[in-house]
Amino acid sequence: MIKIEEALEKILDGVEVLGEEAVGILDCLCRVLAEDIYAGTNLPPFDNSAMDGYAVRSTDLKGVSKENPGTLKVIEEIKAGDVPKEALAKGVCCRIMTGAPIPEGADSVIMVEDTEADSREEVRIFKQTGCGENIRRAGEDVKEGDLVISKGVVIRPAEVGMLAALGKRTVRVVKRPVVAILTTGNELVDIEEEVGPAKIRNSNGYALYALILKYGGIPLMLQTARDSRDEIRRKIEQGIKADMLLVSGGVSVGEYDLVREVMKELGVEMRFYKVAIKPGKPLAFGLIDKTPVFGLPGNPVSSMITFEIFVRPALLAMSGRNDFRRTEVRATIKEEIRKKPGWRHYLRAQVEYREGRGYATLTGPQGSGILSSLIKANGLIIIGEEVTMVESGSEVLVRLLD
Amino acid sequence: MIKIEEALEKILDGVEVLGEEAVGILDCLCRVLAEDIYAGTNLPPFDNSAMDGYAVRSTDLKGVSKENPGTLKVIEEIKAGDVPKEALAKGVCCRIMTGAPIPEGADSVIMVEDTEADSREEVRIFKQTGCGENIRRAGEDVKEGDLVISKGVVIRPAEVGMLAALGKRTVRVVKRPVVAILTTGNELVDIEEEVGPAKIRNSNGYALYALILKYGGIPLMLQTARDSRDEIRRKIEQGIKADMLLVSGGVSVGEYDLVREVMKELGVEMRFYKVAIKPGKPLAFGLIDKTPVFGLPGNPVSSMITFEIFVRPALLAMSGRNDFRRTEVRATIKEEIRKKPGWRHYLRAQVEYREGRGYATLTGPQGSGILSSLIKANGLIIIGEEVTMVESGSEVLVRLLD
Repeated sequence: MIKIEEALEKILDGVEVLGEEAVGILDCLCRVLAEDIYAGTNLPPFDNSAMDGYAVRSTDLKGVSKENPGTLKVIEEIKAGDVPKEALAKGVCCRIMTGAPIPEGADSVIMVEDTEADSREEVRIFKQTGCGENIRRAGEDVKEGDLVISKGVVIRPAEVGMLAALGKRTVRVVKRPVVAILTTGNELVDIEEEVGPAKIRNSNGYALYALILKYGGIPLMLQTARDSRDEIRRKIEQGIKADMLLVSGGVSVGEYDLVREVMKELGVEMRFYKVAIKPGKPLAFGLIDKTPVFGLPGNPVSSMITFEIFVRPALLAMSGRNDFRRTEVRATIKEEIRKKPGWRHYLRAQVEYREGRGYATLTGPQGSGILSSLIKANGLIIIGEEVTMVESGSEVLVRLLD
Repeated sequence: MIKIEEALEKILDGVEVLGEEAVGILDCLCRVLAEDIYAGTNLPPFDNSAMDGYAVRSTDLKGVSKENPGTLKVIEEIKAGDVPKEALAKGVCCRIMTGAPIPEGADSVIMVEDTEADSREEVRIFKQTGCGENIRRAGEDVKEGDLVISKGVVIRPAEVGMLAALGKRTVRVVKRPVVAILTTGNELVDIEEEVGPAKIRNSNGYALYALILKYGGIPLMLQTARDSRDEIRRKIEQGIKADMLLVSGGVSVGEYDLVREVMKELGVEMRFYKVAIKPGKPLAFGLIDKTPVFGLPGNPVSSMITFEIFVRPALLAMSGRNDFRRTEVRATIKEEIRKKPGWRHYLRAQVEYREGRGYATLTGPQGSGILSSLIKANGLIIIGEEVTMVESGSEVLVRLLD
């Protein structure tokens, strides 16, 4: 039996970032960028007006004011998208709309609110202006050649907007890991089937499916193998063709737990079996070629908590992400907690904040089959390996789940 | 011009939770449950063994110990999924595996570690046992008839597992809002086209597409309308058939800003226009029948920030979610900040934590067209309407973005 940190280290040592693929800009949200994005153009691409108003030469308006307005001839109107027809000579101006290109010769824009026009040909201006005023300069956001988004970034909506602005229709991203899910056990029936006596529904397969989706993987359901060496072997052979294989159940000590035997037969190099964690002790991990293989405990809560602690970091690491540390907060507990030494316990709890302080309450019985207490939980209270008692009212560390 | 809180109130008053639909259990992650889920069965459905070992009658083992073992006849072996063949008479036991049903007559399970067997027919037992020991009782997780998951819950992997355990193949959830996106402006060219002089790429459409996806909506791209009354009218008519319409650009004061005019012509009842927020002032909101219509400012950053502050809550509310409050933290700023009174400012910033304290740094120029500073930001510093200066080293409120 090894410690949690040692197990996690072996897992992260064993997995590699997957290869790359090109995806369209509408499909790249939450993916990890696999290339540096350089600007192929200035943004904005040309000097343009920040306002609706008049593009002028500031020297033409020296000294003008509300009391002493200047009058300029309007030679054209430039709307957003228009190309100015001529350069501004001395004493003339252009009517200009927000986003329209600044005509040659103009050096600033007067807001429409500071002007008055009786006709389209002439405008009275009540304010002088400084060079550059109300002009957005070409390249003031991004300069051609700039490194704009770095490899490794998780793409958010702002990055999508920037990629579009730069004209990138597709980007190279890290592939999403395909994760095969195999559930084992003669007692399991699928959701489509009738539950006969002595049978229970396969819930782990569905919970794992959702967990894989949630953390960016592509789940691949292999369905349930009965406790037969042949059936398990056939399904595991299929599963190790994926980027990762999760086998749920069948890794405990029993005579009928064939999973680890078959894994070894197929050449899976086992890295560890059994971790000092509760729930979740009978957790196995190995590698075949570069495919990580997890043997997860069959109890529903053990399965989900070992996913949280061990599989999630592996999945994110393979996706090119290194932001898999969870937030852990301090919170006061009401209940006294007692445990045996030797295992680190993760207890299902609800954390609430009152006046800036965290309070954690156990959400019910902590048996490894009690899913209802996981449903009520938003965090896991962590009780260290050597601790045997935590007094009520003390402060504990809680890993937040969402 | 109205205040942010007033605008938000008008928006939330105007939107309603969408109708329901049934989805398969593999597609329900992150959806909002539209029905209460009651247990149609006990979980676990029957008393079963928590261990590999022997199912016994505790009265048969009174006083046995390591030194004074008891011997019981083994009448059968019950594996997970097996139905026990006979009830336990006095003096006999069954070999039993984890998850297998407890045979009638047995009241506890002895772990295999506390036994020794030379043959399949007989076992020596070194420990006495209490009634109920190592048995998971039928219904100890969930009792038939229990309310297990309440309407309104956002479905997480644990809920998916529970739904599977209860045999729910499909669940009723709130529909995802279909959100139409219309970008306007003669200056816009799509990502597929060449950028000519005076033109810029449509980036808002893509950023909004990603934002809608991120918050659970179904984006519907109407592409770009040129600044022509007919074209805008045609596209808006299309857009108001969706659950929500976002129009980007064309709601400013200019002569060529036709969007609000067309909206009014079509019968959109405008609720407000202009909010005291920067970036984002020219924001319009109205309703036609029950479809909310937003006129978002055309500048890329204004567009994304008004989405964050106003559209996101509306989208989540329509999806049946009421958890749209963002985390706001206190952080110390390095820079002095000056502004004009009258508007609440949201400044792009990077927040970091050192020794439990938050520090915020502006990520660059704050112009409403500067996307590069939004890309570097993980939060928005909030500067109140009436504030005109914040000294360097003071504490500010920061809305976290991710």
